[in-house]
Amino acid sequence: MHSLQFTADSSSNGMVERGFTVGEVPGVLWSPASATERAPLVLMGHGGGAHKKHPAMAGRAQRLVTGCGFHVAVIDAPGHGDRPRTAQDEREIAELRKAQAAGEPEGPIVVRYNARLAELALPEWRATLDALQELPEIGADGPVGYFGIGLGTAIGLPLVVVEPRITAAVFGMHWPDALFEQAKRITIPIEFAMQWDNERIPREASLALFDAFASKEKTLHANAGTHFDLPRFEADSAVRFLARHLGGAVNSPS
Amino acid sequence: MHSLQFTADSSSNGMVERGFTVGEVPGVLWSPASATERAPLVLMGHGGGAHKKHPAMAGRAQRLVTGCGFHVAVIDAPGHGDRPRTAQDEREIAELRKAQAAGEPEGPIVVRYNARLAELALPEWRATLDALQELPEIGADGPVGYFGIGLGTAIGLPLVVVEPRITAAVFGMHWPDALFEQAKRITIPIEFAMQWDNERIPREASLALFDAFASKEKTLHANAGTHFDLPRFEADSAVRFLARHLGGAVNSPS
Repeated sequence: MHSLQFTADSSSNGMVERGFTVGEVPGVLWSPASATERAPLVLMGHGGGAHKKHPAMAGRAQRLVTGCGFHVAVIDAPGHGDRPRTAQDEREIAELRKAQAAGEPEGPIVVRYNARLAELALPEWRATLDALQELPEIGADGPVGYFGIGLGTAIGLPLVVVEPRITAAVFGMHWPDALFEQAKRITIPIEFAMQWDNERIPREASLALFDAFASKEKTLHANAGTHFDLPRFEADSAVRFLARHLGGAVNSPS
Repeated sequence: MHSLQFTADSSSNGMVERGFTVGEVPGVLWSPASATERAPLVLMGHGGGAHKKHPAMAGRAQRLVTGCGFHVAVIDAPGHGDRPRTAQDEREIAELRKAQAAGEPEGPIVVRYNARLAELALPEWRATLDALQELPEIGADGPVGYFGIGLGTAIGLPLVVVEPRITAAVFGMHWPDALFEQAKRITIPIEFAMQWDNERIPREASLALFDAFASKEKTLHANAGTHFDLPRFEADSAVRFLARHLGGAVNSPS
């Protein structure tokens, strides 16, 4: 088992940011500047082509850390951020760009590529969670949530299936093809985001994936607009969902 | 034009409650106890078989009044609350009870009955809004929202079509049959609630009604569970939606 090595830290807006590695995998841990007790942990998965410190990750972390007093950890997905791309990564990305340039459906390529990334990322996430729970400010038995859209769902959904420590999750915005069977095995509370007029992921496919979750508590949020129009207020909603299930109130007006 | 007559008032938990009538129609106006300036107004429609002071109405009003500083008005629908039932009301209700007892579909009866109530209620609501806007603490040009589920949607949806003063609305939980064509004429921001496993209103019918709204900003919230399982956190969500569109922050942690 790999232990967690901190690499750098900084602090701003009431949030401490610590870079870390677990084995070869680089991550970031955002924590409350003034924390004194153990607090819940949210694992966040970044989107395809993004990385652990993408502005969307930092923005969501700010809401969770200063709004709820939670810890937030993100790791780079395989081939993303500070991690090397393999020849296979390069081939898949080239195929994706080609399909996009030709106006051909990208779904089949993304589904296949992300499924392979998920397979690699699952043991990485589990080792990261093991290591994070050794930190005294997190601890081995505290609440753990997951929040990831797009690639963050492609990785997070199968992670939740095998990882009983995660007790609430926010997903959305991914083709369902490789995820249906796994969604049927998920029973924890879920919030699921989709775009009603998504030009990439068919509406019926998103509705069918939401339908597949076996969770007794699950909420679908569908907003008018295309793939990249996902409204910012959905991040606030995800924060409230996680606060409700992991414990704690949201202190910022939102 | 009827003017507004206050009938009684009381105060608790930071909220002033004033009964009123506009012509023959009884209503209630909830306002902040400490208001000094004009504030937005939310019109709320109660559910079928309920009335203006039903606990769901008072609970939502509390969130909007003390959380956002808004005014909230509810009037009794025709045949509801303090208003007399006509012979036709009695016939429709008897038919509905009979269908429910026999396990027959109630949709056709509710759709027809509620469409008639909406026809009667529209001029009542417009006269009430005229009268409320004469109050100095509301005023003629302040923001106005609408929040109504079930019968509150059957009445509120056609009201929004004819009433340009309403600029944001929360709807949900109603058969679409009599509402499709009117939804297509609505362009204001909408939040729409449905129950994913509704045993009364078919899932596809609710999705189709949401799809019909012409609004550029519209959000669907679908929760697992049957008709009467609509989660309480949807009321908090509706309050945040109205605060976002009518102006103001939500001050209670929710």
